[in-house]
Amino acid sequence: MTTRFKIHKKNLKKFIYPESVAIIGANNVKGTVPHDILLNILNTGFNGKIFPVSPGEKFIAEVKAYKYVVDIADPIDLAIIVFPSSVCHLALEQCGQKGIKAVIIISAGFKEVGEAGLEREKKLKEIAEKYDMSVIGPNCLGIINTDPGLNLNASFARKMPEEGNIGFLSQSGALCTAVLDYARAKHIGFSKFISFGNKVDINEIDLLCYLGDDEKTKIILIYLEEIRDGRALMKTASDIISKRGKPILILKAGRTKAGASAAASHTGSLAGSDEICDAAFEQAGIIRCDNIEEMFNNAIAFAYQPLPENNRIAIITNAGGPGVLTTDAAIDEGLELAGFSEETIKILKKNLPTTANIRNPIDVVGDARDDRYNIAMSNAFKDDNVDGVFVILTPQSMTDIDLIAHEVVKVSGQYNNKPVYTSFMGEADVSVGIDILQRNKIPHYSLPENMCKSFACVYNFKKRSNHKAVEPKVFAEIDKIMAHTVLDEAIKTGRSYLPEEESVRIIESYGLPVLENGVANSKEQAVHIADKIGYPVVMKVISDDIVHKFDVKGVVLNIKSAKEVQEAYTSIRENVEHLRHDARIKGIFITKMIPAGEEVILGIKRDPSFGPVIMFGLGGIFVEIFKDVCFRVAPVSKQVASSMIQQLKTYQILSGKRGNPPRDIEAILDCIMRLSQMAVECPQIQELDINPLIVLDENKGCFVADAKIML
Amino acid sequence: MTTRFKIHKKNLKKFIYPESVAIIGANNVKGTVPHDILLNILNTGFNGKIFPVSPGEKFIAEVKAYKYVVDIADPIDLAIIVFPSSVCHLALEQCGQKGIKAVIIISAGFKEVGEAGLEREKKLKEIAEKYDMSVIGPNCLGIINTDPGLNLNASFARKMPEEGNIGFLSQSGALCTAVLDYARAKHIGFSKFISFGNKVDINEIDLLCYLGDDEKTKIILIYLEEIRDGRALMKTASDIISKRGKPILILKAGRTKAGASAAASHTGSLAGSDEICDAAFEQAGIIRCDNIEEMFNNAIAFAYQPLPENNRIAIITNAGGPGVLTTDAAIDEGLELAGFSEETIKILKKNLPTTANIRNPIDVVGDARDDRYNIAMSNAFKDDNVDGVFVILTPQSMTDIDLIAHEVVKVSGQYNNKPVYTSFMGEADVSVGIDILQRNKIPHYSLPENMCKSFACVYNFKKRSNHKAVEPKVFAEIDKIMAHTVLDEAIKTGRSYLPEEESVRIIESYGLPVLENGVANSKEQAVHIADKIGYPVVMKVISDDIVHKFDVKGVVLNIKSAKEVQEAYTSIRENVEHLRHDARIKGIFITKMIPAGEEVILGIKRDPSFGPVIMFGLGGIFVEIFKDVCFRVAPVSKQVASSMIQQLKTYQILSGKRGNPPRDIEAILDCIMRLSQMAVECPQIQELDINPLIVLDENKGCFVADAKIML
Repeated sequence: MTTRFKIHKKNLKKFIYPESVAIIGANNVKGTVPHDILLNILNTGFNGKIFPVSPGEKFIAEVKAYKYVVDIADPIDLAIIVFPSSVCHLALEQCGQKGIKAVIIISAGFKEVGEAGLEREKKLKEIAEKYDMSVIGPNCLGIINTDPGLNLNASFARKMPEEGNIGFLSQSGALCTAVLDYARAKHIGFSKFISFGNKVDINEIDLLCYLGDDEKTKIILIYLEEIRDGRALMKTASDIISKRGKPILILKAGRTKAGASAAASHTGSLAGSDEICDAAFEQAGIIRCDNIEEMFNNAIAFAYQPLPENNRIAIITNAGGPGVLTTDAAIDEGLELAGFSEETIKILKKNLPTTANIRNPIDVVGDARDDRYNIAMSNAFKDDNVDGVFVILTPQSMTDIDLIAHEVVKVSGQYNNKPVYTSFMGEADVSVGIDILQRNKIPHYSLPENMCKSFACVYNFKKRSNHKAVEPKVFAEIDKIMAHTVLDEAIKTGRSYLPEEESVRIIESYGLPVLENGVANSKEQAVHIADKIGYPVVMKVISDDIVHKFDVKGVVLNIKSAKEVQEAYTSIRENVEHLRHDARIKGIFITKMIPAGEEVILGIKRDPSFGPVIMFGLGGIFVEIFKDVCFRVAPVSKQVASSMIQQLKTYQILSGKRGNPPRDIEAILDCIMRLSQMAVECPQIQELDINPLIVLDENKGCFVADAKIML
Repeated sequence: MTTRFKIHKKNLKKFIYPESVAIIGANNVKGTVPHDILLNILNTGFNGKIFPVSPGEKFIAEVKAYKYVVDIADPIDLAIIVFPSSVCHLALEQCGQKGIKAVIIISAGFKEVGEAGLEREKKLKEIAEKYDMSVIGPNCLGIINTDPGLNLNASFARKMPEEGNIGFLSQSGALCTAVLDYARAKHIGFSKFISFGNKVDINEIDLLCYLGDDEKTKIILIYLEEIRDGRALMKTASDIISKRGKPILILKAGRTKAGASAAASHTGSLAGSDEICDAAFEQAGIIRCDNIEEMFNNAIAFAYQPLPENNRIAIITNAGGPGVLTTDAAIDEGLELAGFSEETIKILKKNLPTTANIRNPIDVVGDARDDRYNIAMSNAFKDDNVDGVFVILTPQSMTDIDLIAHEVVKVSGQYNNKPVYTSFMGEADVSVGIDILQRNKIPHYSLPENMCKSFACVYNFKKRSNHKAVEPKVFAEIDKIMAHTVLDEAIKTGRSYLPEEESVRIIESYGLPVLENGVANSKEQAVHIADKIGYPVVMKVISDDIVHKFDVKGVVLNIKSAKEVQEAYTSIRENVEHLRHDARIKGIFITKMIPAGEEVILGIKRDPSFGPVIMFGLGGIFVEIFKDVCFRVAPVSKQVASSMIQQLKTYQILSGKRGNPPRDIEAILDCIMRLSQMAVECPQIQELDINPLIVLDENKGCFVADAKIML
């Protein structure tokens, strides 16, 4: 017996499986939302009691109406408020008095219209809390539950969708109308269809938990405009995916392209909120979709067919051109064309005409009828080298479209451990075949390219589900007190950033490898420090007033002897005093000269939805040009850190391909994990750049060569 | 009066506007290709004479049939052969005897089935040449001409398409059936629809010329699987685009991913044939499409609406979510959301409800009917800040879908100097509105994302048409004799590649800046050369037997004095003799030590379809990792060379952004142009790499630091 997910908000069952429903604000005016909702509930054969509430009517649509909800004697599970926004709070107050625990507020005119609406929305929240009620909405379409034991359409959608195993959640109500219309044309069914609007109380995470446990729901789709608690979303989603095996597909709108130029760090400017959202979804195993079509293309693949064991596909077509196009697309998506067994080739050769191509793609030729498709499909399914079958059809003059569609349904039913996907190309004449496929739950795609994309999506989900996630390691030997002391002190004195010499102390306290260093306030001290470090060394001025040390000739590189240390000490002080006589010099920072190695960048950023995030990528002058960087929500396990490195093109350099020496990737992994712990444990750090981290050859380690921290 | 394009093949008018047609191989068996073609010609009301030819029938479909084509007394403009492939040559021979000049061979079973078919196809070619006949096919669908003065459907397509201004050419016959079915459902019309199959004689370039001059054709679409003469295609296409203003859209299948590892040069391994095809299309102004849907999405935008003056769009929607999704997509595609004038905002404020959003995107709110759409559209069109209008609709319960569609047609007709694009989201209920839009030539897109893509496609076409192409400069002071002497000599001695010291001579003869250099065969000579060049210098061993000079310690860098030259001379000879005692040393190559600068790569490659191609990109260790390179078919003008540099991410480094010094881009341009001339004038060069070309600061020039040539 699996444990149920914690339902953050109570009463969800009353929303989704109510035994009695009150519609508050119902009326008799056809073509209005209040009237349509009541009719929808009545017409779909809702298996419970219905109570219209209306200030002015005695009967609505021949059902007895009540003036106030408190006038109803029976207990009410669910109230639906459709009053104008200005009086919704009054109705909600009465629901509280009546003891109703689940309320949907359909009405718009709240947060989305500005200040006055926000005030009204706050009031709703207060009332709901006072009476311990749960509220969905306001500004939503309502709830649909296709469970034949209930049949509830408590929404103003034009029509009830078919029953199915897809659960759909949407922040936008209007978009739902387009989705339902799209789905109905394609016979795509839903288990639950819930629009949650402004989320005054119940949000996507509460509903996600519910659908995670809902036995009628096999796949979960969400349309989101705003993510408030990204971490909770990730946690809930990844639990549902790993423990229930339910894929979660999200269409996230509102990708803001905030000007990156203003950001203070590379990490800040590279980490747009959309890139972080991408990374977080990927980390949680959520499939991000770019539009409604892509979302449903993937959804039907998950909903209708078994997951493929591997990526080897067989293509069956009655036309060469589409076979070529599909092959191109399949290879692009990382699929493989199956190599058929000798047995399969023999049977195909014997049973197909000589003009047919019996290698993959199988071309059954333009005058093919259902019998040839049957032979090609049956034998492709049977072949152990095939993990999935693609059936393509073009409407040539002899093509019996409907019979071939029926054949696909029949044969795929006989081999139901392997998926079949179809593309009947065209639109008018092929529609009869497409309709047969869609009614029989065979995924159909107008474009073979999209068929390949969806197979790849499902295959990648399956592949990922084979890996077990590992908990991030927690490093124990951290000098947290040191780190917090430096950070808190800087914040207390009102500083917004830490220069290299202080950043390095914090980084060092988390065990990242910094170059040996020291601060000198006299020539003698400088020589002493340099002698201790060992030559060559680098010397840099320390001053709160100087950001670009090179510009004031405040840096000397490659110092090879005590004598050169003394000369450098003098020249730095003189240069800075000459060029910036107002700058207060706090000392001279001395570090070991950086050995040659590959330059990478590490960073921390705080995202408003997802919290602390870390970045890894190619460093040096190319960092903002090639943007070969990636992000993860902190903390990260070694497994995840490893995926960061391997995801980049830079990995080819680090791993020693193309004539480069292999670098110390283990040392980078250690740095990433330690930095991710720092990101979580030091909320004072707003942004951090380690640029560059110099990575030496295998087993030789790496070194932080420069760093800054923004508070 | 514009000049007509040279029609490569004669008789095209007889194919497309025939006055009499013979169908050779016609029969009375329903559901067969020969029968279907005859019926198609009869049923579409062909305005000319029809002569069935059949060995066994007296009448076919109530039309008198002839035993042989030579039996027909009337002159015949066009013959269509639908016999089995084994006897087509006999029918073609008779067409020759009869004096027919235009023949379509529908039959399959030629080149596409292998050796025997190829033989049959050669025979057809011979017969056609003997009688000076033009042939389309074999292995094709036929020709459709929707001109109401003719009405010819000489194909085995199921149905005649609507009349329109799109010309369609296809190498695949079967794909045509899908395209026609797709187009018919969407009321997309064609001017001419021609399937040319195996191109035994007439090819895509001949037909492209014809459509370039055809007054009924405004846009040309081509599906291609194989490009034989890429340069002719580019030339014809770019003439039609610039002189006739007709957009050309090509869907090119068969993107081969040949393993790059075997290639001998960076240029070779980076230049896949598909990348070169992309570059060549871009250079010619051809719009490359990835699939049928994208092709027609763009085609209807060109076919139905005026080109936009600029990229500022107004979005009108009845739902917030789709407004957000469309804004995201528009920005991604490089469009701008128009800022409305004060006047527009005032009128919208006065005439739309207070809950409406009157800024762009205009949200007319969920209960909007046609009147609100009218207000929003009219005022958006009127506003001088708006270049195009996007109308989005979701099917909410009060949405009068059909009336709104009619309103779009009406209002856009009143403002027909600006384009309107639409997206009615959903599928079932919205279909009534979509049908109205499609019948009235309003571009409709199921996905707002595709609407944005197509607008961007049209806008980019318009923007490009404002630029005038410049002829490539021909450098006169080239030492061609030197270059050819070195190359021919190397080829004569059976060598497949030229080492640095010889490659440099050829590169120098084309005026590219090489480092001062010389070859020494004694210590004294080495000192003499180094003194003349000026220090520091580099010395490298010359030997045909050594490819990797560093591996045998055959290179010494940064030599600063005559004494060091002598030491280096000795050590190189000793090292090589010690490590590779079998290698014959031909001398020591001495060059000036390379000054510091940015490393870029230049290259030449020969493509089987497009001939000499040049490459430019980021050099150094990143070249094959970031693949920040681009290609052009040679020769290139300064304008095109400039576009190569600006297209790359590396341009940000070269142009001095992000703290880098600006580099000498003029010097790179000169190198690219000279190299492109070399590529054309020296067909002996199979591949060439200049890697790196070191680019110095502005006005300081650049230098070839290493080069190799493959023969």
